[in-house]
Amino acid sequence: MTILLYDLVGRDEKLPYSPHCWKAKMALAHKGLAFETLPTRFLDIAQVENGLSKTVPVIRDGDRAVADSFAIALHLEGAYPDRPTLFGGEGGKAMARFVERWTQITMHPFITTAIVFDIFQMQDERNVPYFRSSREARLGKRLEDVSAARDAGLGAFRASLEPLRSTLSYQPYLGGHSPLFADYIVFGALQWARVSSPYSLLDHDDPIDEWFRRCLGLFGGLGAGVPAAA
Amino acid sequence: MTILLYDLVGRDEKLPYSPHCWKAKMALAHKGLAFETLPTRFLDIAQVENGLSKTVPVIRDGDRAVADSFAIALHLEGAYPDRPTLFGGEGGKAMARFVERWTQITMHPFITTAIVFDIFQMQDERNVPYFRSSREARLGKRLEDVSAARDAGLGAFRASLEPLRSTLSYQPYLGGHSPLFADYIVFGALQWARVSSPYSLLDHDDPIDEWFRRCLGLFGGLGAGVPAAA
Repeated sequence: MTILLYDLVGRDEKLPYSPHCWKAKMALAHKGLAFETLPTRFLDIAQVENGLSKTVPVIRDGDRAVADSFAIALHLEGAYPDRPTLFGGEGGKAMARFVERWTQITMHPFITTAIVFDIFQMQDERNVPYFRSSREARLGKRLEDVSAARDAGLGAFRASLEPLRSTLSYQPYLGGHSPLFADYIVFGALQWARVSSPYSLLDHDDPIDEWFRRCLGLFGGLGAGVPAAA
Repeated sequence: MTILLYDLVGRDEKLPYSPHCWKAKMALAHKGLAFETLPTRFLDIAQVENGLSKTVPVIRDGDRAVADSFAIALHLEGAYPDRPTLFGGEGGKAMARFVERWTQITMHPFITTAIVFDIFQMQDERNVPYFRSSREARLGKRLEDVSAARDAGLGAFRASLEPLRSTLSYQPYLGGHSPLFADYIVFGALQWARVSSPYSLLDHDDPIDEWFRRCLGLFGGLGAGVPAAA
């Protein structure tokens, strides 16, 4: 049965941008499972699967609804053990959590700073007031002022990615010879920025950018199929 | 056959302190393999196994000599597949490399700053000039001046460990329910500091310190058996 993925979008349904939804989408593609996306805006989330979660992604897989990208990956690994593994064993499952926490703590705050105003501008009319008020409360300043800090922080952000960059000098993917869910965790963060904002997070000759472009091409170009923001 | 581990020491053979040797020692214990340590000082390394490596750990396992802690763990995993796994599968093997790069890049530079003068004071007479000149060349200042920066950097160091701290809120070990080589990678860094220096890297109520104390107790207290520097 086709799995449904509630996938965050703004005004344009063809521009899904959520990092966490991208993780889930890449996980579904990795498993080779048939899925359809249901474009979902922030204010629709409360109605998704009877209010299962305050956030997306959420998937509906037969009689199961699952929220949270990591929980979705764990569900898919357990429900479809004969499909390609997302974790490469129990150790990979445990350490993917470390990759997730590292990505969330090291990458997401700066990327938020760099692109939140662009994401604001992607919202439809109904979501504009919600997005502004919720994000300004969280960030403690006007959205117009948040991104002013991005140029000053870019060098430190790039330096903070050195553990990833160094790992990619040993192996082509975080997962080793081929990608695993850990790769999609980091991919989600960079795809979030790519779809939302023209701001360049990485130098083109950065090994991380080379790895990211390889990930964009996976599964018939699933990631590359959504255009970069111009 | 008993495996030999060339284990870095200073003046006192009973105080092995190298982070990388601790990783290898914990890996040997995890596999439940019989091993003996050969206390080795810096200037002895050139003679270890006919100059196999510029660094220790080195192990001699039957007809194989292996250098580098990660390579040693890979060797043990391959040579003793029926013993408890150090990686929990191929994914864990790949992601342990990320944990290693993260530890090396995030933890080792500050720990070096904090304890290098203590390590200098642990050297025997023959190694004192070597240690001072090689480390001062690397660090660009007198050893007496390096540690002056440690108090100013301590807060940022503790904050930089947040991805590890956050992971430990999900699971008791980096390896999940029980420790894997990834845990010993981080353990090695903290044990290096514990054996060498009285300087407190972590708050006692930091979940990372709680995890570290659990690691000290593993394998009959292998880590705890070497006293903390007073």
